[in-house]
Amino acid sequence: MATRPTIRDIREAAKRIQPWVHQTPVLTSSTLNDLCDAEIFFKCENFQRGGAFKIRGATNAVFSLEEEEAGKGVATHSSGNHAAALALAAGWRGIKAHVVMPENAPRVKKEAVAGYGAEITFCEPTLRGRETALAQVVNRTGARFIHPYNDTMVISGQGTAALELCEKVPDLDVVIVPVGGGGLLSGTAIAVSGATAAIPVFGAEPENADDAYRSLKAGKIIPSENPDTIADGLLTSLGDLTFPIIQALVRDIVRVSEEDILRAMRLIWERMKIIVEPSSAVPLGALLAHRKALPGHRVGIILSGGNVDLSTLPWERKNRMMQG
Amino acid sequence: MATRPTIRDIREAAKRIQPWVHQTPVLTSSTLNDLCDAEIFFKCENFQRGGAFKIRGATNAVFSLEEEEAGKGVATHSSGNHAAALALAAGWRGIKAHVVMPENAPRVKKEAVAGYGAEITFCEPTLRGRETALAQVVNRTGARFIHPYNDTMVISGQGTAALELCEKVPDLDVVIVPVGGGGLLSGTAIAVSGATAAIPVFGAEPENADDAYRSLKAGKIIPSENPDTIADGLLTSLGDLTFPIIQALVRDIVRVSEEDILRAMRLIWERMKIIVEPSSAVPLGALLAHRKALPGHRVGIILSGGNVDLSTLPWERKNRMMQG
Repeated sequence: MATRPTIRDIREAAKRIQPWVHQTPVLTSSTLNDLCDAEIFFKCENFQRGGAFKIRGATNAVFSLEEEEAGKGVATHSSGNHAAALALAAGWRGIKAHVVMPENAPRVKKEAVAGYGAEITFCEPTLRGRETALAQVVNRTGARFIHPYNDTMVISGQGTAALELCEKVPDLDVVIVPVGGGGLLSGTAIAVSGATAAIPVFGAEPENADDAYRSLKAGKIIPSENPDTIADGLLTSLGDLTFPIIQALVRDIVRVSEEDILRAMRLIWERMKIIVEPSSAVPLGALLAHRKALPGHRVGIILSGGNVDLSTLPWERKNRMMQG
Repeated sequence: MATRPTIRDIREAAKRIQPWVHQTPVLTSSTLNDLCDAEIFFKCENFQRGGAFKIRGATNAVFSLEEEEAGKGVATHSSGNHAAALALAAGWRGIKAHVVMPENAPRVKKEAVAGYGAEITFCEPTLRGRETALAQVVNRTGARFIHPYNDTMVISGQGTAALELCEKVPDLDVVIVPVGGGGLLSGTAIAVSGATAAIPVFGAEPENADDAYRSLKAGKIIPSENPDTIADGLLTSLGDLTFPIIQALVRDIVRVSEEDILRAMRLIWERMKIIVEPSSAVPLGALLAHRKALPGHRVGIILSGGNVDLSTLPWERKNRMMQG
């Protein structure tokens, strides 16, 4: 499956997932435009089913399986949005989803995945514990492993968000999306380069988890070491499928401080009246930090998701973290 | 000005304010539909300019003034969304806005009104202090007093939100909006009765500020006494212009407990990923409390605004209030 997807794969994904996922709206804010000296178009994947863009890739992967293979179910390891998305998509197809999660995953995440009907296997909170548990599940069930980002069908699905954005706002000057494992960024880069006149695509990455930035500079994958950022969807490192696509098609990676991520997230909540998770705010954080960089440009941003624990505010948690 | 507005006034208001206000989107949520056993269409005035529907009435009032009268400016007393809206609309027309506010108004509200360029006069936090200060401002400046809700042009402007909702979703079975002073509710009732086949309009009101409910039962205006609700936009009592419209055109007032308001607000934040102020959540609170009342109905709800202080979460504040 590790073939590099093309714009045609993304168009096929768009058709395949269309009955299941939302065509999310594109919102604008004159206040944020003024603050950034740009015209920003926010593609609101926080309104997507499951609360994040991840359902696009998961649905594309699940519904492109042959009948027989699908019958054995799907499996993944994730404590985040991909696991919930895979559970949801598997439910739509009527097949089983097996999710390996660390025992210490947040309760809300466990409940979300279980609520979508997945079978959860808990593992020790280490890479080795996770991989062992996943291998056991796959051996036992024959389920197909769907990687959170290093997968052709997942990347193709994630690219459909940018496809919709470019169709809705055809004359963008630049697109910026967050980068963690690179599924969204690589899919976006393929979609944008295929769908419009070539315009630059940037990744926005937390300074405190800047493996994509360092990997591009080094010309090889350099995994994250102890990444520590409020943008908890972006802790993962690039994969051997996403990295070369990003190398080939992405103009640059912009690193964003924790302070700018928090500031951007709070502005989105206060000014746009929408709830986004910290990872979603990283591209706007990049614009705020470099406001003279794209004067008057029409900038497309994908707000990747809105799954935050609302029992405390993100900036309060962060304050506590920083004090603690 | 105390003539009862008609559907024609609302249509004229829609044309008058069209260059200035947003046509806000209508959102849906399958989770909330399931929870309420209804099909709900949320008109998102939390995305409106100034963060609330109030800009509709204020803009209609400001732009319907004759040139000479407008030159003397406008004035109001309010510590909430109407004051900010009037300041914003006056700025668009290039005239002065004078706002009388109690000294103890929250800092964020003072800053919002001042930020929109209004001239603030502080008064003692009593009805008498407010009225005296307003009379002095009006005498000194000749400014036109624009009442927050008991005003023909304001009511006509507020009715444009329901007009847009009925145009976008023409086959609604019922419309529910929050009621405080009754500007939104009376405007909505006129718009709905004029725009569509007669469908019922309900007001939703906090139990702890149920003057509209009691006024309708009594057949005369019964002002609120010490209203105490988290829905701080709904503390005001009906006026002599809004009351008879509501009497004639509104099917009923549904009272909602503080618990149901909070529950509804949290569901909107968590499931729809949008930020609404407590007042906006009252209609959904009514549906949650009476989920068998409208089985399968297509229900239009106006989410009145999204101006909340994001330094603490509303449910945390409420917990503290209830403990305190």
